[in-house]
Amino acid sequence: MSDLLTTTEELRPFTWQDGQLLLLDQTMLPAREEWLAVNDVPGAGDAIRNMRVRGAPATGIAAAYAMALAARNIGPTAMPVFLDELDAQAARVAAARPTAVNLGWAVQRCRDVARMCGTPAQAAARILSLAHAMREDDIDSNRAIGRNGAALMPESGGILTHCNTGALATAGYGTALGVIRAAWESSKQVHVFCTETRPWLQGARLTAWELARLGIPSTLIVDSAAGALMASGRVGAVVTGADRIAANGDTANKIGTYSLAALAAANGIPFYVAAPFSTVDIDVQCGEDIPVEERPGAEVTSLGGHPIAAEGVDVWNPVFDVTPAALITGIITERGVLRAPYEAQLRDLARQPSVTEVA
Amino acid sequence: MSDLLTTTEELRPFTWQDGQLLLLDQTMLPAREEWLAVNDVPGAGDAIRNMRVRGAPATGIAAAYAMALAARNIGPTAMPVFLDELDAQAARVAAARPTAVNLGWAVQRCRDVARMCGTPAQAAARILSLAHAMREDDIDSNRAIGRNGAALMPESGGILTHCNTGALATAGYGTALGVIRAAWESSKQVHVFCTETRPWLQGARLTAWELARLGIPSTLIVDSAAGALMASGRVGAVVTGADRIAANGDTANKIGTYSLAALAAANGIPFYVAAPFSTVDIDVQCGEDIPVEERPGAEVTSLGGHPIAAEGVDVWNPVFDVTPAALITGIITERGVLRAPYEAQLRDLARQPSVTEVA
Repeated sequence: MSDLLTTTEELRPFTWQDGQLLLLDQTMLPAREEWLAVNDVPGAGDAIRNMRVRGAPATGIAAAYAMALAARNIGPTAMPVFLDELDAQAARVAAARPTAVNLGWAVQRCRDVARMCGTPAQAAARILSLAHAMREDDIDSNRAIGRNGAALMPESGGILTHCNTGALATAGYGTALGVIRAAWESSKQVHVFCTETRPWLQGARLTAWELARLGIPSTLIVDSAAGALMASGRVGAVVTGADRIAANGDTANKIGTYSLAALAAANGIPFYVAAPFSTVDIDVQCGEDIPVEERPGAEVTSLGGHPIAAEGVDVWNPVFDVTPAALITGIITERGVLRAPYEAQLRDLARQPSVTEVA
Repeated sequence: MSDLLTTTEELRPFTWQDGQLLLLDQTMLPAREEWLAVNDVPGAGDAIRNMRVRGAPATGIAAAYAMALAARNIGPTAMPVFLDELDAQAARVAAARPTAVNLGWAVQRCRDVARMCGTPAQAAARILSLAHAMREDDIDSNRAIGRNGAALMPESGGILTHCNTGALATAGYGTALGVIRAAWESSKQVHVFCTETRPWLQGARLTAWELARLGIPSTLIVDSAAGALMASGRVGAVVTGADRIAANGDTANKIGTYSLAALAAANGIPFYVAAPFSTVDIDVQCGEDIPVEERPGAEVTSLGGHPIAAEGVDVWNPVFDVTPAALITGIITERGVLRAPYEAQLRDLARQPSVTEVA
């Protein structure tokens, strides 16, 4: 598993094989392709916390697989004991990253499924099936998001995106990058501008790499060049993903997303959010109520183990910011494109069952 | 000269010693303090081009010293021959960085002075005196900018700045950082937020280091966190430097400055530009006419020799952007604080001779 993926192979951030979860270690990409075997909740929690798997949809599905591992590892015991232990492990998985709603959403669905089973073995099997179904459902959703969003993209010219929202951030295909990919596949002559996305450089390391594999023309910029790029007239649309969408449409996403949305508004450029509907947290009224993860300052002050800042400096390192709904031109989901005002539409759609829930 | 400067010592980016220009190599800071001896125009050009000395005011004065070296190195010859050769060397110095007006301004002043002299030796001496005078004048200007700007800073709370505009970017003291320093010295309880300023990390490496030396509390953020920081209500003012100010007030400065100005406007936060009046290029009508330097993509795709992006990716790496005058609350100069509309005031002040010109 040390050979680099061929460009014709479909990118996937994880695969289930021989009873274990294999994760493509995204902290090593694109320099090295290393697969990490995960067999239990502590291993999955570490991988999620340390961003070896990242991106809200991918993280959610990895969490479902972590729950399958948890259910299997608890082994035969009385159902009430099993469910108590499963809940304890669920709390550990859900705590790995606080902002993305998909994590809590996936874990909750696994707990719900377990409660419908008669034995731990049956529950373990059902949770694993659910994880597989969520993976397939996510790919289907992404393709639908792509179709819905592609129509909104310009026929040609620049599209700006942020962070990584491609195959690596999902079960495959991508959300915001899926929209761009679908536009490209529908013969639109797009040119992608990707921000490097400090401090983890997901844009420089992952998005630029995915786009090169797909043969879609792209240009990398530092995050702070986005304003000048938009002012230059070379951007026809901005598309980003989402980690959590509140009931009013306020959207938490990678730090810097709010800046891009404000700059897009100032330059008369449409700003779209692309995400599966599971990203909507209807129980959270607005952006202020979304918890924003803050990570260690060392992520900013060192890179690859080398110091890149003055020693001992204080750092504020929020991972996400909140884009007010008023700055969002449209929210692209697998259920359609929503336009402001968002709340009534979001609440209405939230009452409809998802494919996975029906299954 | 390998010992790190003590914190009580006043920071200077260069010094003239034993007939040569000693430059503190800013690409090595803060990890190592290395002084580079410069003896001729090629050496000075390389140092400026490779950003061993940077910051519009510091670059301008270093260019004047480069002209003094050029004049000395040409040696005894007929004045017309001397002046032709000096002009050729001047063109080389001025071409090292195209955006900052200070470089061309300083070089032109040296050429003017040479034309008032009878012999090459006299010209060499006069140019060196001019370089010294410009250095002293810059420190005086910075202190005046600091005094003028300190009054505009909040009594307490956050001030956001970008890149490095401190002692290292000038002959000493600083422009935007000088304003913050003067506010601090006048007992305002400021807390500085500095952007890391990709790709060269002048904020993380230089500004954070200068602020620590000065004992001014500060926090480092990635460039893309500036929007979230402003939206959080923790920023009372934004202050940046300038590399060139057009006649209508449009201002070229480090890439990302325009984004900060647009975000400040969106959040109702005053945005100030602090610069010596020599930064005003009255012959350039507006921002569109300012040439913006683009540098190699490798500055974005590698750091300290290590690749940090997907291999072979295309990069757009503009060093500066242009902030429209409409987004600038005030321009702080040593001659006073200007408010919009800027053009009449700038043209009026441009007609008054500068201290150095009078000398």
